[in-house]
Amino acid sequence: MHQTDKLTESRQTESRHRVGDRDLLRDALRDQADRGQTKSDIVLLSVQRLLRRGAITNLAKMLGRMHPADVAKVIVHLSSPKEKREVFELVRGDSKRGQVLSELDTDSITQVLADLLQSDIAWLIKDLGPDDVAYILGVLPEERAKEILSLMRTEDSTEVADILKYPKDTAGGIMTTEFFALSEDATAQDAIRRLQEATDAEMVFYIYVTAKDERLVGVLSLRQLLTVPPSTPLKNIATRDVISVSVDMDQEEVARQVASYNLLAIPVVDKEGILVGIITVDDVVDVIREEATEDMLKMAGAVQEEAVSKSSSLSAAKVRLPWLFTNLVGSLLSGAILWEFRYTIQDVVAIVSFIPVIAAMGGNVGLQSSTLIIRGLATGVVELTDVWSVFVREVKIGLLMGVACGMILSLVGWIWHQGFLGMVVGVSLITAFLVSTSMATFMPIFLKRMGVDPAVAAGPFVTTANDITGITIYLTLATVFMEYLR
Amino acid sequence: MHQTDKLTESRQTESRHRVGDRDLLRDALRDQADRGQTKSDIVLLSVQRLLRRGAITNLAKMLGRMHPADVAKVIVHLSSPKEKREVFELVRGDSKRGQVLSELDTDSITQVLADLLQSDIAWLIKDLGPDDVAYILGVLPEERAKEILSLMRTEDSTEVADILKYPKDTAGGIMTTEFFALSEDATAQDAIRRLQEATDAEMVFYIYVTAKDERLVGVLSLRQLLTVPPSTPLKNIATRDVISVSVDMDQEEVARQVASYNLLAIPVVDKEGILVGIITVDDVVDVIREEATEDMLKMAGAVQEEAVSKSSSLSAAKVRLPWLFTNLVGSLLSGAILWEFRYTIQDVVAIVSFIPVIAAMGGNVGLQSSTLIIRGLATGVVELTDVWSVFVREVKIGLLMGVACGMILSLVGWIWHQGFLGMVVGVSLITAFLVSTSMATFMPIFLKRMGVDPAVAAGPFVTTANDITGITIYLTLATVFMEYLR
Repeated sequence: MHQTDKLTESRQTESRHRVGDRDLLRDALRDQADRGQTKSDIVLLSVQRLLRRGAITNLAKMLGRMHPADVAKVIVHLSSPKEKREVFELVRGDSKRGQVLSELDTDSITQVLADLLQSDIAWLIKDLGPDDVAYILGVLPEERAKEILSLMRTEDSTEVADILKYPKDTAGGIMTTEFFALSEDATAQDAIRRLQEATDAEMVFYIYVTAKDERLVGVLSLRQLLTVPPSTPLKNIATRDVISVSVDMDQEEVARQVASYNLLAIPVVDKEGILVGIITVDDVVDVIREEATEDMLKMAGAVQEEAVSKSSSLSAAKVRLPWLFTNLVGSLLSGAILWEFRYTIQDVVAIVSFIPVIAAMGGNVGLQSSTLIIRGLATGVVELTDVWSVFVREVKIGLLMGVACGMILSLVGWIWHQGFLGMVVGVSLITAFLVSTSMATFMPIFLKRMGVDPAVAAGPFVTTANDITGITIYLTLATVFMEYLR
Repeated sequence: MHQTDKLTESRQTESRHRVGDRDLLRDALRDQADRGQTKSDIVLLSVQRLLRRGAITNLAKMLGRMHPADVAKVIVHLSSPKEKREVFELVRGDSKRGQVLSELDTDSITQVLADLLQSDIAWLIKDLGPDDVAYILGVLPEERAKEILSLMRTEDSTEVADILKYPKDTAGGIMTTEFFALSEDATAQDAIRRLQEATDAEMVFYIYVTAKDERLVGVLSLRQLLTVPPSTPLKNIATRDVISVSVDMDQEEVARQVASYNLLAIPVVDKEGILVGIITVDDVVDVIREEATEDMLKMAGAVQEEAVSKSSSLSAAKVRLPWLFTNLVGSLLSGAILWEFRYTIQDVVAIVSFIPVIAAMGGNVGLQSSTLIIRGLATGVVELTDVWSVFVREVKIGLLMGVACGMILSLVGWIWHQGFLGMVVGVSLITAFLVSTSMATFMPIFLKRMGVDPAVAAGPFVTTANDITGITIYLTLATVFMEYLR
């Protein structure tokens, strides 16, 4: 196995094309620079204009000078499958088209490959790393993917099949099987010779050292190779303590490891400790962005798939509805509580003027706390051992803010309704804040301990619970102190 | 200038220590593996136990076997400054202590360095890359930082001062000034010799080629060097089109570029095109995590500084209050509207039972839309050119979900209050959803065009606007159809 890292081709040393096309874009840039548009916007607009005009030669020339990642971005943002295919067909060179393909989102891959023969696809992806091929084939229907695999060179297809057998969000699913590994009995000289022979070796970050049974036993750097006598066996110079991840580790945990140890690549081992692949930092970058997006969307009750795939409105609505239904039930419960207290409300109708305040504020305070904690747990800033101090801190903050807002409300209530209603609202608000911050801190930590993703906690449950408590406290207090409010 | 990349030391090939301490931790792991705790939790608990017991020798031994990044994590999570200092003092070796320092958060840096002499600090950080030194000195009071700089070797302190003069969140502020660059007239052989001499050269990703005036003119890979005759001048083999960023570019944009072109390092140039530094991908990983955290917290009305620095409750409350005040004003406006319609409410008190529903649901639907768009704009999934299609899509989704929830509400209203109130609620909800999704889609895009960070838009403004519109529509309809509701 040697290093033909998937990045090799798309990296800047290899690229003879450039971001954008200066000549064609100059006037577009002049027109629109002051309209807050980014370079990608302008490139996209130019491509659309050329497409509409049918200026195929110019468009092909422009695409030829663009980086594959930029071409991919243009294709992703074109709205019709037909346009996507047209632009993809205009990209010259199978190798570049393969790279463009590997940078597309899942929908665009399906669309641009729709009319192509399996043999054409096999040809397009022949120079890509096995992880990229696995990504592309993972998007296609299983039948089709199998046929394409059967058309590839056996060594390539075996590697791809190895990756495809792991779930997409695990170390095994995102690793590449192309890495530079040598036996521990090989000498420094052997290693250097192998490095020189490896045509794509420029992206070797680490040389992995394996025992006879292919177990990962060490790692060394290029510099270590160059500073020892040529006949030194690798086992004498390799560092024995290697940070590695197991093949079934969640990609989020892999990302955390790579980020916290500042690694460029992390080796992946199976249950027996056998080296099966590596994950490079650029894939980790994608994972980190993806997971952050996922957490944010989860907190708002939407999901990742949707953002990426730009699916139909109907399927998007289906995905978001369960969250809204939970919320609907919760807010109906709040409504039922108001209904229970209807005589109080009819008696002192001024009470209604603070219902939105109580309902909104508790939820918002909770959102602040739970966002902080969910994100903290995701990035490792908050650990489960911090639980108690984090909890106390959030409740204290809740109390301080409750007192501040409560005092303002008491004053507003005094001026507006000439009486003690404002005091009741103020006290209710402080109580609601305390409940809210406690709940919002406790729930994510509790869910994390239960092994459930805490990002779902900031959503409907906490908000709903907060609304209900806030309104109940408010109306109970109002009923109790009724005689002073009239 | 040659490559002594800041990562060198902390990378795994150099590390002789390992994550955790197997011997000491075995029983702790057995105890707690089933309580949902991560390895960091367990390590932290063990350190705390050893500290409390005063088992200094064991603790020092354990720290000695830990990776600097893990030691830093432990220090960050200890609660008292005294404990932090104790653990930091127990780390053996100035070089390792320097690495630990560079991985700490700003508060911990201040705390562990509080009692140290300037000369000790200068000694601790002498082996760190200039970007790490700049980070550490940036945390200390200016006076102290200057003294430490004056105690460092002149060449080192100049490089650090170069970085310190740029804002922290720009390319200049996060770059390192240690990179491998050669004149375009140098030959391949020169380059190889220089590479062999460079003691820390194992982390060279790219060789940058500069003109006589130090302008960046090309880039090449190690492999390109090895495959040409030794006397070839670099200018003949370097790739001319280099993707670079300007020194004042926002770090978020830098991260986007590195991520989209899968680079391991990106060169930083000044206005004249002179190469002044490089940014490596591991720093980009930090930026991406940081920016995602920042956006999430902004959306909830909290801020980054707070999460990182674990500041006092009072200062945290101060940071979060402005957002709550905006919300307070907004919800008081909703309350004022309810007060305006008080006769309607007193007349048909059943109306109150749907107020929480109308208030909560509109806000939540808006949150889904705006989260999707804000995150899309941040990651480049949504471009400003997509505006129209995104807008139409979100409004369509809003309509679909409004019809679904509206029908349920009509039914609930019919059963609960035996009448047309449910219909009024249903229709109001659909209208509120339409307004809500439009607003939530429009606002972030509008703010982005205005050059304002769209993450603030998901917060108070959209929610408040939604609440007010929802309640107004509901009560207006209820008043109009009053005779059918009684």
